[in-house]
Amino acid sequence: MSTPINNLGIVKRNIVRADKAAVEKLSRFGVATIHEAMGRVGLMKPYMRPIYTNARMCGTAVTVLLQPGDNWMMHVAAEQIQPGDVVVAACTTENEDGFFGDLLATSFQARGAKGLIIDGGVRDVKDLTEMAFPVFSRAINAKGTIKATLGSVNVPVVCAGAQVNPGDVVIADIDGVVVVPAAVAQQVADAAEAREANEGNKREIFASGVLGLDYYKMREGLEKAGLKYID
Amino acid sequence: MSTPINNLGIVKRNIVRADKAAVEKLSRFGVATIHEAMGRVGLMKPYMRPIYTNARMCGTAVTVLLQPGDNWMMHVAAEQIQPGDVVVAACTTENEDGFFGDLLATSFQARGAKGLIIDGGVRDVKDLTEMAFPVFSRAINAKGTIKATLGSVNVPVVCAGAQVNPGDVVIADIDGVVVVPAAVAQQVADAAEAREANEGNKREIFASGVLGLDYYKMREGLEKAGLKYID
Amino acid sequence: MSTPINNLGIVKRNIVRADKAAVEKLSRFGVATIHEAMGRVGLMKPYMRPIYTNARMCGTAVTVLLQPGDNWMMHVAAEQIQPGDVVVAACTTENEDGFFGDLLATSFQARGAKGLIIDGGVRDVKDLTEMAFPVFSRAINAKGTIKATLGSVNVPVVCAGAQVNPGDVVIADIDGVVVVPAAVAQQVADAAEAREANEGNKREIFASGVLGLDYYKMREGLEKAGLKYID
Amino acid sequence: MSTPINNLGIVKRNIVRADKAAVEKLSRFGVATIHEAMGRVGLMKPYMRPIYTNARMCGTAVTVLLQPGDNWMMHVAAEQIQPGDVVVAACTTENEDGFFGDLLATSFQARGAKGLIIDGGVRDVKDLTEMAFPVFSRAINAKGTIKATLGSVNVPVVCAGAQVNPGDVVIADIDGVVVVPAAVAQQVADAAEAREANEGNKREIFASGVLGLDYYKMREGLEKAGLKYID
Amino acid sequence: MSTPINNLGIVKRNIVRADKAAVEKLSRFGVATIHEAMGRVGLMKPYMRPIYTNARMCGTAVTVLLQPGDNWMMHVAAEQIQPGDVVVAACTTENEDGFFGDLLATSFQARGAKGLIIDGGVRDVKDLTEMAFPVFSRAINAKGTIKATLGSVNVPVVCAGAQVNPGDVVIADIDGVVVVPAAVAQQVADAAEAREANEGNKREIFASGVLGLDYYKMREGLEKAGLKYID
Amino acid sequence: MSTPINNLGIVKRNIVRADKAAVEKLSRFGVATIHEAMGRVGLMKPYMRPIYTNARMCGTAVTVLLQPGDNWMMHVAAEQIQPGDVVVAACTTENEDGFFGDLLATSFQARGAKGLIIDGGVRDVKDLTEMAFPVFSRAINAKGTIKATLGSVNVPVVCAGAQVNPGDVVIADIDGVVVVPAAVAQQVADAAEAREANEGNKREIFASGVLGLDYYKMREGLEKAGLKYID
Repeated sequence: MSTPINNLGIVKRNIVRADKAAVEKLSRFGVATIHEAMGRVGLMKPYMRPIYTNARMCGTAVTVLLQPGDNWMMHVAAEQIQPGDVVVAACTTENEDGFFGDLLATSFQARGAKGLIIDGGVRDVKDLTEMAFPVFSRAINAKGTIKATLGSVNVPVVCAGAQVNPGDVVIADIDGVVVVPAAVAQQVADAAEAREANEGNKREIFASGVLGLDYYKMREGLEKAGLKYID
Repeated sequence: MSTPINNLGIVKRNIVRADKAAVEKLSRFGVATIHEAMGRVGLMKPYMRPIYTNARMCGTAVTVLLQPGDNWMMHVAAEQIQPGDVVVAACTTENEDGFFGDLLATSFQARGAKGLIIDGGVRDVKDLTEMAFPVFSRAINAKGTIKATLGSVNVPVVCAGAQVNPGDVVIADIDGVVVVPAAVAQQVADAAEAREANEGNKREIFASGVLGLDYYKMREGLEKAGLKYID
Repeated sequence: MSTPINNLGIVKRNIVRADKAAVEKLSRFGVATIHEAMGRVGLMKPYMRPIYTNARMCGTAVTVLLQPGDNWMMHVAAEQIQPGDVVVAACTTENEDGFFGDLLATSFQARGAKGLIIDGGVRDVKDLTEMAFPVFSRAINAKGTIKATLGSVNVPVVCAGAQVNPGDVVIADIDGVVVVPAAVAQQVADAAEAREANEGNKREIFASGVLGLDYYKMREGLEKAGLKYID
Repeated sequence: MSTPINNLGIVKRNIVRADKAAVEKLSRFGVATIHEAMGRVGLMKPYMRPIYTNARMCGTAVTVLLQPGDNWMMHVAAEQIQPGDVVVAACTTENEDGFFGDLLATSFQARGAKGLIIDGGVRDVKDLTEMAFPVFSRAINAKGTIKATLGSVNVPVVCAGAQVNPGDVVIADIDGVVVVPAAVAQQVADAAEAREANEGNKREIFASGVLGLDYYKMREGLEKAGLKYID
Repeated sequence: MSTPINNLGIVKRNIVRADKAAVEKLSRFGVATIHEAMGRVGLMKPYMRPIYTNARMCGTAVTVLLQPGDNWMMHVAAEQIQPGDVVVAACTTENEDGFFGDLLATSFQARGAKGLIIDGGVRDVKDLTEMAFPVFSRAINAKGTIKATLGSVNVPVVCAGAQVNPGDVVIADIDGVVVVPAAVAQQVADAAEAREANEGNKREIFASGVLGLDYYKMREGLEKAGLKYID
Repeated sequence: MSTPINNLGIVKRNIVRADKAAVEKLSRFGVATIHEAMGRVGLMKPYMRPIYTNARMCGTAVTVLLQPGDNWMMHVAAEQIQPGDVVVAACTTENEDGFFGDLLATSFQARGAKGLIIDGGVRDVKDLTEMAFPVFSRAINAKGTIKATLGSVNVPVVCAGAQVNPGDVVIADIDGVVVVPAAVAQQVADAAEAREANEGNKREIFASGVLGLDYYKMREGLEKAGLKYID
């Protein structure tokens, strides 16, 4: 049998989710810290914004590939959600229609979803806020969608510029959305922890008036690079 | 007498506003619901955003056609406002200057306006928020405007991609802005009511774990479309 | 010695800050008022937005010219901050990386900075909000930066479309960001005061139902321009 | 029978096309001239661009309302084309998929279409160029579309910010796209002619060194407005 | 040894390039055809545009991951180019600096590169055009770059919204850029061939006036969907 | 007498133009080369594009500050043009109206202008192309403008993100637009010449297959930075 040409029309049921302990540990850190711990990769584009202040989430990705103006696959995805998952929805083209609202959110929440990341639009934002169901999206849009064309569930997707595989850890907060491949979740969690420990009392040090120039010993490097102080 | 070539330099005083009862009834529903009740048409583009959280409005349109960097017609429009109206301001070109601030808002509010929809910028946002005068705009911009060139009041306009006729019903909330033609206001209100009634206990059903796949009987359609489940 | 070709690799230590009294006076007015008092110039582009509601600042500019993806100069700038300064950061190209976070904010705050205006991205927004350190930026972005290439501190910069010289007064609130050249700070403060005094009881007048059409005596001008009222 | 709530799912067969002589006359003028002759209204947004240099067209509008990612209605529209028509395609949402390619162009051309104006994407641009079939679009995009959801043909649409009714005259050239309502086509054609006659030898006059300041007698107005010449 | 957290600082020398015969066969088809043959996936976003008319290319991907404002890795990539390759350059953040010009193009061409796809800016466009070195980019920008920070060569990248693995086939023409995974290159080439054969004499058929409505037997489907013809 | 608060309503007649010989020398180099010779500063944003292929210009700036939708100052500027000047037009706000067309171009050309750089729109592009009058603009737009509000001529402006002073040298070609301050024009011209001389036979060297890695001796630096080659 030949390799299928593409990943459309497929629902993968068994996905390997990142280790629960690693996910739990990652949930303690902010997106900026995790992104640094990964060596500054894995971020979605900054147009992805929370629909309400203080929205945040951390979970394992159930991925969805949508067609423009069509949210059929969101319903298919609902069934694949396990407690602790985050749904990550990409689209085969740029489209800001409102693929998601309060009823789907109710369903997702009933299945234990931690939130939704969608490179598209959402609606019923007042309800979603009251339900405390966090969503990061590229738009808020009342525009409804149809259910006519197949996409996929749990195939690799590119969402807002980031590659996401089913089971990867996705963390979102006010600073953005970061994707941690399942295979390195524990490592990244450890690196984030080390980084945060290392931050230690830096805030106190800088609050006391010590400059980064001195603390990080930058003066020599700056001089070597040719920085001139003039009066 | 020949037809005038365009609608510039005109103020129409007597406009046919949508039926009050229909407007009142529409005010009970959200933008997403009304947009669906209309068969998914009538939305402005999603770049129209409220200037403060929880801003919402429902009223009959007094339309304004502005010139770039010029808010003269906003003053002309003020006189045409009747209690329950929403001012809908379009511009002859794309321009994000601050056409509207606290003084005009005071005037509009004194005339009974329910709010402003403007495909341009507004300023004095702190004051507008304190006054609880809702505005949906494409920008917040301190840039002031002049009063030099005629536009029109109460002519048909295209605002943020939507056709608006004077007297149409305009509803805005966190999900966006929708325009209901006056002639179908009652019908749309009824359809919205029916739709909401029909939603009935769907939230409870989905909250209990029933999937949209089953509730909407999608499985057969998906299979027919060729959806494959793999492990 | 020849004139240097450009202003890169330079830190100017002694800058002439706008008069303290003028700055203090300007701090009493909103951005829209000051922009009008200047004759409608000096605004940054409206894509500059506060990272939290109610952020506002007024202070004298310490300018920074950044390189893309590089925040080395922010550390150099920290040392040049005096109490009452606002840091204004431009970049040699369009770049939305997260040049600034909680540690730099701690340092800036320790030096007495009133806030940051940056034509780029910032991160650690939750921390910055808790610290009540106001920032106006073009983006929120967790993307970290390096420290490898020289820019400058306290050279003239173009930030979000506005020319800013070190020592200029920068005022930011929900309506936007305005730059007042140091040489005219007192004049603009006086003009803003006069303007606000002149606003006097206009709000009350308009609230009572008087129209701008009559208050500003616009009817004659409109008629002369050819405005037609039709029924 | 009640008024239908919306215009979806409709094909209007008999439309009133603008007078042939007026259309022919309009075809002699550029878009900038016609737009001026209309009093500076009727332009589509400037993101509408020709797919090849020198593309231009003038004809009567057959309108199409598309759904995102779906070009079914383009086929329905083909049948409604009469020689001299221009197809004007809008979409119920913002979508840049490639709704149109060489086969549809062949069909349109066979029916006598003068070109296509589409607030979306097109593909097969090399073929379209070789066929000399002019298209003005918001994007070039290879992305294919489906045929699943009804839109409409020959209903009023908003295309790239302009209201277009079936039968209106649409003129497009390198400067943009302008819409002339059928009812005023002759008047606008006459006004354009008068305007161009009036331009008369202005080019020669300005080429000889006469300034607009003098030719249009602007100096007094400028002085009155307060213009100051300094050395 | 633990899995590396990310793919930065790596050059993969041995990559599996798509089968030469498949690449050659794919080079005969346009991007729109190949994208359809793949089932409508694999396209880059439509902001990727050729720097000169008629630019087109087909080859196997050597991938580059750049840092903002830094083109060091382009030099590293040059050495990995084999005749028939296309360089595909992504960036760790959005950046439109001019990462590429005539000297790098000379080097790439000397190594046998077929062209460059870059989600960033390029310069020396006049020279590149004279050299007939095709480039598809998101911007043309004279802005120069530095050589200071490591990225990678021949790791999987996301370029303009599409996942690209080293060795994949990349085809670009006026309609856009499409990526064909190496594993399915032959299949896609065959499908494209079948598709084109199937197009057969469609152009002639449509040119003769046969409508898609009839040729594709759409009338019944449209009627079933509820399409109404009115006069 | 007090300092004027702003620079509006002013025409400066006597400006110090950059040295003619320096301008002539600069005209021999491309924008990318000059931008590098200046140390990578002085570029306008890359959205500034030529209205026709091969447009290029080099001259001394006569600056114009426009108001939105108003081209009055373009006529005032015409009188200030001397042979060899380039008109650089900025606007007090973002506005893409068509401020400039064939008649103004005729006037400018009659005065000896080398071209126009405008952070706005232009029209009559077919005529401008036939006249070989080069324009770099942010938009092509048929939208006409009025003559009602004062701006200024020959004051410092910010145009497309670059500070431009009257008399500065402005060079534009397919790669973009660069501004060279009059005071360093000769120095930059010399640096550009040196740079180009230095490029010498690099093209031949790279064409022969020598890699930048070796020619620029990058291998050691890359290794030190930690670059790993894997198979």
